[in-house]
Amino acid sequence: MSKPASLKGFPSREAERAVKAALEEDMGLAGDITTQATVGEKTRARATIAARVPGRIAGLQCAEAAFGMCGKSVGFESVIADGADVAPGDILARVSGPAAAILTGERVALNFLCHLSGIATATRAFANAVEGTRAHICCTRKTTPGLRALEKYAVRAGGGRNHRFGLFDAVLIKDNHIAAAGGIEPAVSRARAHAGHLIRIEVEVDTLGQLDEVLSLDVNVVLLDNMSLGDLGEAVRRANGKVMIEASGGVNLENVRKIAQTGVDLISVGALTHSPKTLDLGLDFFP
Amino acid sequence: MSKPASLKGFPSREAERAVKAALEEDMGLAGDITTQATVGEKTRARATIAARVPGRIAGLQCAEAAFGMCGKSVGFESVIADGADVAPGDILARVSGPAAAILTGERVALNFLCHLSGIATATRAFANAVEGTRAHICCTRKTTPGLRALEKYAVRAGGGRNHRFGLFDAVLIKDNHIAAAGGIEPAVSRARAHAGHLIRIEVEVDTLGQLDEVLSLDVNVVLLDNMSLGDLGEAVRRANGKVMIEASGGVNLENVRKIAQTGVDLISVGALTHSPKTLDLGLDFFP
Amino acid sequence: MSKPASLKGFPSREAERAVKAALEEDMGLAGDITTQATVGEKTRARATIAARVPGRIAGLQCAEAAFGMCGKSVGFESVIADGADVAPGDILARVSGPAAAILTGERVALNFLCHLSGIATATRAFANAVEGTRAHICCTRKTTPGLRALEKYAVRAGGGRNHRFGLFDAVLIKDNHIAAAGGIEPAVSRARAHAGHLIRIEVEVDTLGQLDEVLSLDVNVVLLDNMSLGDLGEAVRRANGKVMIEASGGVNLENVRKIAQTGVDLISVGALTHSPKTLDLGLDFFP
Amino acid sequence: MSKPASLKGFPSREAERAVKAALEEDMGLAGDITTQATVGEKTRARATIAARVPGRIAGLQCAEAAFGMCGKSVGFESVIADGADVAPGDILARVSGPAAAILTGERVALNFLCHLSGIATATRAFANAVEGTRAHICCTRKTTPGLRALEKYAVRAGGGRNHRFGLFDAVLIKDNHIAAAGGIEPAVSRARAHAGHLIRIEVEVDTLGQLDEVLSLDVNVVLLDNMSLGDLGEAVRRANGKVMIEASGGVNLENVRKIAQTGVDLISVGALTHSPKTLDLGLDFFP
Amino acid sequence: MSKPASLKGFPSREAERAVKAALEEDMGLAGDITTQATVGEKTRARATIAARVPGRIAGLQCAEAAFGMCGKSVGFESVIADGADVAPGDILARVSGPAAAILTGERVALNFLCHLSGIATATRAFANAVEGTRAHICCTRKTTPGLRALEKYAVRAGGGRNHRFGLFDAVLIKDNHIAAAGGIEPAVSRARAHAGHLIRIEVEVDTLGQLDEVLSLDVNVVLLDNMSLGDLGEAVRRANGKVMIEASGGVNLENVRKIAQTGVDLISVGALTHSPKTLDLGLDFFP
Amino acid sequence: MSKPASLKGFPSREAERAVKAALEEDMGLAGDITTQATVGEKTRARATIAARVPGRIAGLQCAEAAFGMCGKSVGFESVIADGADVAPGDILARVSGPAAAILTGERVALNFLCHLSGIATATRAFANAVEGTRAHICCTRKTTPGLRALEKYAVRAGGGRNHRFGLFDAVLIKDNHIAAAGGIEPAVSRARAHAGHLIRIEVEVDTLGQLDEVLSLDVNVVLLDNMSLGDLGEAVRRANGKVMIEASGGVNLENVRKIAQTGVDLISVGALTHSPKTLDLGLDFFP
Repeated sequence: MSKPASLKGFPSREAERAVKAALEEDMGLAGDITTQATVGEKTRARATIAARVPGRIAGLQCAEAAFGMCGKSVGFESVIADGADVAPGDILARVSGPAAAILTGERVALNFLCHLSGIATATRAFANAVEGTRAHICCTRKTTPGLRALEKYAVRAGGGRNHRFGLFDAVLIKDNHIAAAGGIEPAVSRARAHAGHLIRIEVEVDTLGQLDEVLSLDVNVVLLDNMSLGDLGEAVRRANGKVMIEASGGVNLENVRKIAQTGVDLISVGALTHSPKTLDLGLDFFP
Repeated sequence: MSKPASLKGFPSREAERAVKAALEEDMGLAGDITTQATVGEKTRARATIAARVPGRIAGLQCAEAAFGMCGKSVGFESVIADGADVAPGDILARVSGPAAAILTGERVALNFLCHLSGIATATRAFANAVEGTRAHICCTRKTTPGLRALEKYAVRAGGGRNHRFGLFDAVLIKDNHIAAAGGIEPAVSRARAHAGHLIRIEVEVDTLGQLDEVLSLDVNVVLLDNMSLGDLGEAVRRANGKVMIEASGGVNLENVRKIAQTGVDLISVGALTHSPKTLDLGLDFFP
Repeated sequence: MSKPASLKGFPSREAERAVKAALEEDMGLAGDITTQATVGEKTRARATIAARVPGRIAGLQCAEAAFGMCGKSVGFESVIADGADVAPGDILARVSGPAAAILTGERVALNFLCHLSGIATATRAFANAVEGTRAHICCTRKTTPGLRALEKYAVRAGGGRNHRFGLFDAVLIKDNHIAAAGGIEPAVSRARAHAGHLIRIEVEVDTLGQLDEVLSLDVNVVLLDNMSLGDLGEAVRRANGKVMIEASGGVNLENVRKIAQTGVDLISVGALTHSPKTLDLGLDFFP
Repeated sequence: MSKPASLKGFPSREAERAVKAALEEDMGLAGDITTQATVGEKTRARATIAARVPGRIAGLQCAEAAFGMCGKSVGFESVIADGADVAPGDILARVSGPAAAILTGERVALNFLCHLSGIATATRAFANAVEGTRAHICCTRKTTPGLRALEKYAVRAGGGRNHRFGLFDAVLIKDNHIAAAGGIEPAVSRARAHAGHLIRIEVEVDTLGQLDEVLSLDVNVVLLDNMSLGDLGEAVRRANGKVMIEASGGVNLENVRKIAQTGVDLISVGALTHSPKTLDLGLDFFP
Repeated sequence: MSKPASLKGFPSREAERAVKAALEEDMGLAGDITTQATVGEKTRARATIAARVPGRIAGLQCAEAAFGMCGKSVGFESVIADGADVAPGDILARVSGPAAAILTGERVALNFLCHLSGIATATRAFANAVEGTRAHICCTRKTTPGLRALEKYAVRAGGGRNHRFGLFDAVLIKDNHIAAAGGIEPAVSRARAHAGHLIRIEVEVDTLGQLDEVLSLDVNVVLLDNMSLGDLGEAVRRANGKVMIEASGGVNLENVRKIAQTGVDLISVGALTHSPKTLDLGLDFFP
Repeated sequence: MSKPASLKGFPSREAERAVKAALEEDMGLAGDITTQATVGEKTRARATIAARVPGRIAGLQCAEAAFGMCGKSVGFESVIADGADVAPGDILARVSGPAAAILTGERVALNFLCHLSGIATATRAFANAVEGTRAHICCTRKTTPGLRALEKYAVRAGGGRNHRFGLFDAVLIKDNHIAAAGGIEPAVSRARAHAGHLIRIEVEVDTLGQLDEVLSLDVNVVLLDNMSLGDLGEAVRRANGKVMIEASGGVNLENVRKIAQTGVDLISVGALTHSPKTLDLGLDFFP
């Protein structure tokens, strides 16, 4: 089973910011009026977070942060680590402390954990499907507004690779840029003159003819969008290792292995982050 | 076909905040280095946003905001309004102005519009399924962190109703609150003493026996979680209009109409917001 | 003597935000230049916060936060709790630690504590005046900009109830809304269609005739503004428990008991928060 | 009648920040749900803001900002200017535009305008009482957290002078600073060494003996707290113009003129800002 | 004379944020009390910004933003564009409008413009010195906290290239990373596994032996710190175009050309941003 | 050697804000990808910060804050204090803890420490040059945007005095203000009426004639810009202690002592903060 190649770099500052914002969104000015009214300040509780379906976990530190912001004395003990696979019934973490804080933080904690684990689980499925090929599954910029750093991390937790983080850390020249620049060559050459020497350039091409033109330029990656399997294979042959080849467009669990077998280096899948299915996890109190 | 009962209250301040944050996330310090390098400042472009699949639209003002923040002179003309249904090929909006601004804002604009329209489309499917019954489809607090106000709006655009916005604007007493308060009656009575007179109280019950207890108290809504169709119907009979009845748990497009036919007032569906499938919309430049 | 029915839900995040902002306002970039110059870093001090007049206390945690933000090692020990009544000379809290931190934080700490205790004290006077009747004293939205959550809490500390927190958590239909909607019935029915099922609706009426119209609709509370005692009593009779009755307008300590004796459920008093008299509390250093 | 000596420097950035925060506080995520439901987007309205009692006005630009943030097309026309005196029935401003925006912004606009005008009115009363003497009425740091710049402005609108804005823009040495520094002379000399050459030094003294000591040092203002009228007069004689003399403590409308007649330069009154009574102003729609 | 290869991508959002913060820093709560007191609201003025020494200009839009934030009706007309060279007396821009706004914004406007032009001027001097060689001058991360995006832009305005913007957009492996990873090869291979496919890897080496090791790995740039001219030349020969070569350490205007003549691709100069000399520009009012 | 007269008032809140912003600038969303990939979470390290050139130190608490924000368990031990002079090789501080946190925080920590120490070192040189005269060296408002409070502190660390912090804490009347007010006397008198009694007034004059006019008014400091040494001496004689005299314009290490010997009280030097040379400090790991 595919494991996360390199699960590092949890975006802790982004997590703190996003969890704080989510709590403010959920509590408004008046706070958790139900719990304020019904739960005594000294009532303590213990609870576990457990899986109800199989999946891969990401975001435990978000859950920990959510509970911690609701009560400084809440204890949070992770039983497993991000990147681990769970079966139904598996316990992910134990929470203990003031019952009020746990009840108040529960929904925000789970909203993060279930969302990010859903992304990790989907990524894992794609990564497993291409195992044994040279292809890596990677994400896109089709992420949920405000959660990009966390979602990119969840993709890595699922065994995927990250594409660029934004418009700022790599050049990706598409058809409209080519049109505006007056051709592939001027677009690439302007990009090389503008960007720092540590910035890579990727170009999206529609045809094998365009690929040939790109192969003569100082380009690092070529993106082939919606190409047939045959053309993908031919593109890999023509590139011959000079550039990396990324395939995208209409990728699903049925066709991803065939795409991988054409020899491409990367397969980007927007659905990992634009349409993730939440992973069903629950928090249960126990006596 | 179900239409949005009351599509009002677009959360414009929240939209502005979220779109601004998304652009900052996407642009970082260096901005859109590809477009900076390849597209002249004076190059102008026209584009349309069109549907590639059928669905219901929500979030056009987010798209407009995204483009507007990338260039003050970008024109954005909505062809339809939020809450409208579209068929493949239908044009939603026209964008015109500096090509650089349109290219830079494209992804953020679509990320919002596709996400919110996905929620509206899913809601519409559920709302259509219960048409002719007394039941309303409503959302939960299982929303994407940071986007709750927008997602609640998208649910309304899809013909659904909103549940409480957060922990602050209504009381929802669940099993753990009941346990901490020492019973349903003390929980309700403490909540009534604590909350203002404009705050409603909902209680989640597991059994018909609990329902009977709740019916004797000053409670406005009863939430029945994961009850059988038979029990739901019996609950409706016992409530006899004294309280509203909300059903939740495991609701899907296959069973939602049967649940509605038991006579419940509300059916809450977490999946509307925790697992929405993006609606496939695209931006196309034209000469 | 009236005691706070339910003094829960101190808005700790709002308190932290407001205290931090107040300190920034008071310190600017250069900070407390007097104390910097005259008080050694190692000088320690002890002080007490004491009442100079009788009153009810609210906001001790704001004072604690103010001192804590000026020096992490400042100790703050509350002798009484929010909601307690004090006589002149009573000690509220003891502060100890670096003299510089205590001197720097003193004014901001007292500004919060005296302001909120002033509101609690005023509320207590009104609440005492209606003791034995069914009426509750409640606040309005005429609060100090930026301090609403804290002031609503202070009202509860004084034995009052909270009205809605803002425009978002309840519907309150006034004459202009009725005019715009074309009548009471369409206004109420539009509100019911727009708002979630956990949102209550209150309608302000000018005449008993309007009251009769409202009583036939799905309305939860009726607000009678500036009505005579006779009309208030008649309104209570007509409502007959179907809706809650709120009286407002020109309420003062002289007339509030007579208003309460008409049988209304709620009496709202804007002056609690729009014209509070500070409670005179002082910080005294001792050797 | 006393007029504002110099009504300049409306703190527009502070006003914008505070009004924005107040609107967010009042609207939350869901906004003005009553107006959303009942008032059509195209309904327009005209209204006036009028005085219901006599007073002095401050804060019209806050009201304008509040309406403007609720709808860009709201027109706001001031009939009078800040610093003007009004009689009951006098119109302060006219508002016109979308009815929804006016209704949504009304409360926040009035909260600012009534609060600041209340401060201006109270200040005017004190300023009038000392007319013809050399004394100026001035405020203290006992301001409402978050509103200091606006309240200082309102004091000027009422004909008063501003004391220091915070801990950062002047040195004010009190008994605890003197004790920590080991005497008045070392306290003053340390302050002079620490503060920039554009920073003035004020010292609070309890006795005429201390005053004599201060008069021999490089001090600009002496604060006499709770001194008898006789001692104040004697202090003025001893100071003989070398330093400014400020009186404070227990000042009210009954005793302020007698204090002024002792010849002091400044009389500071905490109640101007810590216990202001709102000025009763109202917004009336008209056909 | 060297001209900016590609002066694009002015960081307008960063500029707006930084200018706003600088104005808040300069104005505090009370604002420009000198101008408030002395300059009438209707007094208008015209002024020019002119060079007093020769140099290259960057940051005109910051100056424009500063004036615009002080008064919406201030007109700002750039006579030249960023990246232009000026001689003493040359006019850069004309400002006109309310005299108060111009006087209030003057210092902040000049603080940005003189600082950024100082960086552009220093960069230009280095870029001129290496003209005709293959070397590009580039900046480092030794920038002024809070101004990085603007300073990177100023370097480009001076004809330089940008190094990575931060820790996030490229991998730069130094001796401590190599030590922690257990060697160059494991460090590079871990970085390649962790970073996305659009991230470049640079390695800093101390010896030609290390260079040989790096040349066998998947590395894009090699940084040679403080190497002799002879070793730099030998490194260029060994690299033979397989990787880019960056020289750094002790670079100044005396030795930079000799370094460039060794054939290196990049010469990074920390002093461009860590010790820039302000460019002397002045604002002069005229009748 | 000149020592800091009064090194108090480190702006800790400003430092925390600025350091946090600098780290966000350096880390973006993805963080320190090099260290994430290459350094194990459990690897620990020890390092020292040492001087490579002689100078005076300021900003150690900024460095401590930078490391602390990268890892809560990082230890930071200052060996010397701000205001101390160092020789090459002298150790300033020791850092120990997780190697990853130290590597990630290194650049931001040094950017602050080297910048502020550069300002302190430059100030010290000027202060030493005027030792034995009555003149104090002081800074101006030509500071780096966003860092003013820290830079003013660094000037004090170097033995200088602070001028006003901004436009808000003192009146400084220049030629344009005089022109707008219609003369020196009306400008001063308007300022005195507008500003609080704790605000000092400084006037900039061009000629000895203007000085004579100012000496008859209620002014505290006179600024003489670009006057000859002879005129400065004459001005000092005419002022005769009635006002403080500040000299400015074209001050450098060659002429500053001669200026001081004219008897002026203050010499302001813009270059202290607008063109500081970084102090070369380094962080070295050791086994």
